[in-house]
Amino acid sequence: MKHPNVSNNVIRRMPRYLRKLDELTEAGVSRISSGELGRQLGLTPSQIRQDFSCFGEFGQQGYGYKVTALRAEIASILGMDRGYSAILIGVGNIGQALMCNFSFSTWGFDLKAAFDVKPEIIGTNYEGIEILDMATLPEYLADNHVDVAVLCVPKAHAVSTRDLLMKNGVCAIWNFTNVELKTPDIPNENLVVENIHFSDSLLSLGYFVSYNNDEKAAQAAKLNKSTL
Amino acid sequence: MKHPNVSNNVIRRMPRYLRKLDELTEAGVSRISSGELGRQLGLTPSQIRQDFSCFGEFGQQGYGYKVTALRAEIASILGMDRGYSAILIGVGNIGQALMCNFSFSTWGFDLKAAFDVKPEIIGTNYEGIEILDMATLPEYLADNHVDVAVLCVPKAHAVSTRDLLMKNGVCAIWNFTNVELKTPDIPNENLVVENIHFSDSLLSLGYFVSYNNDEKAAQAAKLNKSTL
Repeated sequence: MKHPNVSNNVIRRMPRYLRKLDELTEAGVSRISSGELGRQLGLTPSQIRQDFSCFGEFGQQGYGYKVTALRAEIASILGMDRGYSAILIGVGNIGQALMCNFSFSTWGFDLKAAFDVKPEIIGTNYEGIEILDMATLPEYLADNHVDVAVLCVPKAHAVSTRDLLMKNGVCAIWNFTNVELKTPDIPNENLVVENIHFSDSLLSLGYFVSYNNDEKAAQAAKLNKSTL
Repeated sequence: MKHPNVSNNVIRRMPRYLRKLDELTEAGVSRISSGELGRQLGLTPSQIRQDFSCFGEFGQQGYGYKVTALRAEIASILGMDRGYSAILIGVGNIGQALMCNFSFSTWGFDLKAAFDVKPEIIGTNYEGIEILDMATLPEYLADNHVDVAVLCVPKAHAVSTRDLLMKNGVCAIWNFTNVELKTPDIPNENLVVENIHFSDSLLSLGYFVSYNNDEKAAQAAKLNKSTL
């Protein structure tokens, strides 16, 4: 697995390739050139070849990529065959939506249990995943290996839950709390965090909308002026 | 608003600055140096100064940034004061979670209505947002200005809903469908998309977990060997 010289940007493109290859498989496409793959993804063929060359030789000159073989290689690069175990903490709306709608197993993750503090939901389950008492988390982690915690607790509990997880040996967090969990005092090798920052994404969208509107307004003004 | 020479990477850091500044305000911090801001965000002071310099002069040499003033500048850069209007399409678990938990108004968006095809939820509402019949969407868009559509429909309906939106003048989509909506045949200026790709994020996390595990295993093996 170790790919010490591969940049984060390359890694982050891998899931996108995987999704595209799944789409191609569904559409009955069995072989694709880097040119066509690039066209469909808005990337240059040379960037695609360069990305894959970080991990070995997958394609064949003038012949393209075999979709299923490339898909298997990327799945393996991403460690989808490793059987990660996960727990979810905080069964509010977003936690519930993930438990009911997000297919963890499709992506190689086994969601083992969820944890919450609300007595009325402890002992119930969503899609077969039992909701356990948050107070039993340290005990659970002593008895069960957990690779990843999906963190959906309210903002105010984000940092304390991170600390509890790290203290009990969980060093990877899928973070839905909108709080920055990586702080300068935590060494990189001790904690891996991937964030879903809804607001960051929406704010970027807002920026691009305004930018487009201003562009159009400026063009219209220019046109107006030239036709005066 | 127009900032033609600002890279997307700079834009995408702006919401992160905004979140940090909100945290600082909450913590009662009124002034911060680029050095301290950088330390807290894992960025270099010069990168921070460079990012802000794209938009004008916000700080004062040797004096730092005024937190509330900088926050206001960034909010304005992002267009949060423009009063964007939004609709949500597809009130399943994720759509529901967004309607109930995500504070659109905090980020400058006015969520006006939601749309779905299920008769049993049409006419009901979440947090005061009414769920309207999907069949009435074109009519609604003819009568109401909408900047952004939040797309939470099942995968199979993603592309057809995008086309319906574009046909009716909505050219910005916040995309939760896990389907690529930007395709080579759609010019950039005609459609802006921001994606929340849950699986991409989780797969990247998986990669970094495996990478860390392999690193540790390799170090342990080396240590073992050297103590033989």
